[in-house]
Amino acid sequence: MPSPLRLGIAGLGTVGAGVVKIVRQKAALLAERSGQEIVISAVSARSKGKDRGVPLSGYAWEDDPVVLAQRDDVDVFVELMGGHEGPARDATEAALRAGKDVVTANKALLAHHGQALASLAESMGRVIRFEAAVAGGIPIIKALTEGLAGNDIQRVMGVMNGTCNYILTRMEDAGLSYDEAFAEADGLGYLEADPTLDVGGIDAGHKLSLLASIAFGTQVAFDAVELEGIGSISIEDIRQAADMGFRIKLLGVSRLTGRGLEQSMAPCLVPAGSPLGQLAGGTNMVVIEGDQVGQIVMRGAGAGEGPTASAVMGDIMDLARGTRLSTFGKPAEMLRPVTPAKAATPAPYYLRMTLLDKPGALAKVATVLSDAGISINRMRQYDHADDAAPVLIVTHKTTREALDIALAGMAQTGVVTGEPVALRIEEV
Amino acid sequence: MPSPLRLGIAGLGTVGAGVVKIVRQKAALLAERSGQEIVISAVSARSKGKDRGVPLSGYAWEDDPVVLAQRDDVDVFVELMGGHEGPARDATEAALRAGKDVVTANKALLAHHGQALASLAESMGRVIRFEAAVAGGIPIIKALTEGLAGNDIQRVMGVMNGTCNYILTRMEDAGLSYDEAFAEADGLGYLEADPTLDVGGIDAGHKLSLLASIAFGTQVAFDAVELEGIGSISIEDIRQAADMGFRIKLLGVSRLTGRGLEQSMAPCLVPAGSPLGQLAGGTNMVVIEGDQVGQIVMRGAGAGEGPTASAVMGDIMDLARGTRLSTFGKPAEMLRPVTPAKAATPAPYYLRMTLLDKPGALAKVATVLSDAGISINRMRQYDHADDAAPVLIVTHKTTREALDIALAGMAQTGVVTGEPVALRIEEV
Repeated sequence: MPSPLRLGIAGLGTVGAGVVKIVRQKAALLAERSGQEIVISAVSARSKGKDRGVPLSGYAWEDDPVVLAQRDDVDVFVELMGGHEGPARDATEAALRAGKDVVTANKALLAHHGQALASLAESMGRVIRFEAAVAGGIPIIKALTEGLAGNDIQRVMGVMNGTCNYILTRMEDAGLSYDEAFAEADGLGYLEADPTLDVGGIDAGHKLSLLASIAFGTQVAFDAVELEGIGSISIEDIRQAADMGFRIKLLGVSRLTGRGLEQSMAPCLVPAGSPLGQLAGGTNMVVIEGDQVGQIVMRGAGAGEGPTASAVMGDIMDLARGTRLSTFGKPAEMLRPVTPAKAATPAPYYLRMTLLDKPGALAKVATVLSDAGISINRMRQYDHADDAAPVLIVTHKTTREALDIALAGMAQTGVVTGEPVALRIEEV
Repeated sequence: MPSPLRLGIAGLGTVGAGVVKIVRQKAALLAERSGQEIVISAVSARSKGKDRGVPLSGYAWEDDPVVLAQRDDVDVFVELMGGHEGPARDATEAALRAGKDVVTANKALLAHHGQALASLAESMGRVIRFEAAVAGGIPIIKALTEGLAGNDIQRVMGVMNGTCNYILTRMEDAGLSYDEAFAEADGLGYLEADPTLDVGGIDAGHKLSLLASIAFGTQVAFDAVELEGIGSISIEDIRQAADMGFRIKLLGVSRLTGRGLEQSMAPCLVPAGSPLGQLAGGTNMVVIEGDQVGQIVMRGAGAGEGPTASAVMGDIMDLARGTRLSTFGKPAEMLRPVTPAKAATPAPYYLRMTLLDKPGALAKVATVLSDAGISINRMRQYDHADDAAPVLIVTHKTTREALDIALAGMAQTGVVTGEPVALRIEEV
């Protein structure tokens, strides 16, 4: 057997501690499978004294992850600190410059600096692996980069933020308001310190930008992701969607079209009976469509110690086995710059708005839609107590561009009160 | 770029022709992704003249796949002929002995000779890849061998024969009898030349034995798979199961227990709302449970030109990228011999039988079950026109061993006519 593969682990939160446990408890199994012993040389975290439920005294301690990343006895730098600037970025760059391979769970880091880091890694002859950064334990990066490498990918979709899916599921199942479901998720510790990372779609948008890069051979372009959070979804929307046979999911969708790369992370309606529609609670799901393979659906836990540590270990095992791939499936210099295309692919839309209860109000809205070239599939004004009339409209297929024109036009009618809710109905 | 990776393809049926098309049409994409040009040197099939919808004149032709497998201008032998003896086996062995890597879609070959072929490959320093052999386009071999390599696998389950799932789905959806649904599948060309490979569970059993080897680090032991086909399933069973909230699937289940390796491919009841229960038509699904990752579900097309060729290409791309793994995830000599354990894990069972309409008949059956230590969860004798009384029993958890004792006992009672149907209810 060759000499051991030596890890330096920075970040000893839930996931870091989980990785340490696996390396300790499964040493023989990992060595049998990879042909190489996997050991930990050194670790680093913010506070040295904290009990993390796993013995650390056998490993060198570094206060500074940048120092850890450059240690001579480290072959692979395992970055589990998080954050797209500061120590995580500094240490990752230092590791690559020092000739170490990097395994990371840091979606924000790669979403913001993926192209530069991939180039740096390749210039040093090193690799960056990040299975844990997308959809937790689901081996989706591997499936997309490797297993489906013979396909032109046509569409990538995913429910990749378990917290949002939990909130939406609870709204539907328990009839909770958004605020109530949010508070429940918060009480369970499901939310990030900055909850807009979750409910604003940012975290899931990071993940989508990484998948899109691999799928379409484009540079990571998180800034080009159209982001829309779930904060505007009301229990009313959930119920109306359910009545029509749909569920509302925070769904990432990316396609490469003739007009450019579509990347959208927004609440969408999906058929209740589809795999995406059936996805309840904190579980994640990624759907990949390839010209050869058709549709592949992968489902599993998107977060948590075990699932995330499983993904980190998969990457470490690949390095131990000698698998060495480009970060985003192609050499960084071959990744094409992105031309963003705002949801160019036509889709039906769900619209909910409140009209002043005046004669002709509905006609005005219908005219605005018609003027924008949008035809109506169904339209329903339903029971109301006061002088505000809730209206539900499902359009035939239209572009987001046309829809935005119509929404702007509605604001001019003087009969629409408040902000209409507009959700794409994604065919899945 | 290094010199091209040169393929020799034996077998030009649907899948072989599909692979040729991909190599021709996606040459630039494949080279960008793998860093190596992929070319075809030579091909072989039974009849040279046949039009396969793709130009073959640029490739050398070999009548004998064994000769093809040993050509100097072939780096990777792609075996797409099928069959576990004869040309497929001869050519695969010849290729390995000649120092070629092998990519194959041949589940039967590996189920019968996997251990010997893996040893041969390793002794020659070559690798065998077989993603296309299990669950068509779903990259399940890769997920299990690589992505989940940090897990102790607890259970592997799968619906891996699309034809059987099509037949069962049609029985439920259209109220067809087994014979009618079988005839329909036959008319659509879904059945193998020898249909018992499909409906007898043999094809799916081959696949399960390969997954079990990787999951549990055991030698491939197809002979130890408990096989039961779908021929005994009646529309009555489908309806009774549906009434109780279940669907019937030809389900492969494998676990490593203290008593040995369980491998069962048999019709089972699964909850109608579970991902496995929701799986309709010819689609495949594999469920993997690991101690770290929890449950991972993968779903996709299990057969057909595109999906299967996609899997073959994924393997070829791995070879082009320099990924080189042991056939079953560990060196062949480390794979442990199998101690078969007959469905040792207790489960509830669904029993349907016909009793003579005599006083005390039901009591006799209940006594036999009780004597075998099996307690009854629900029991129902339902409407009948003649002197034969159909009875439905759902047991509490019991072992297959106890159940077999009970079934033997029932045959002795003199009140059970015909063969009882006994199906495990798998918790998923």
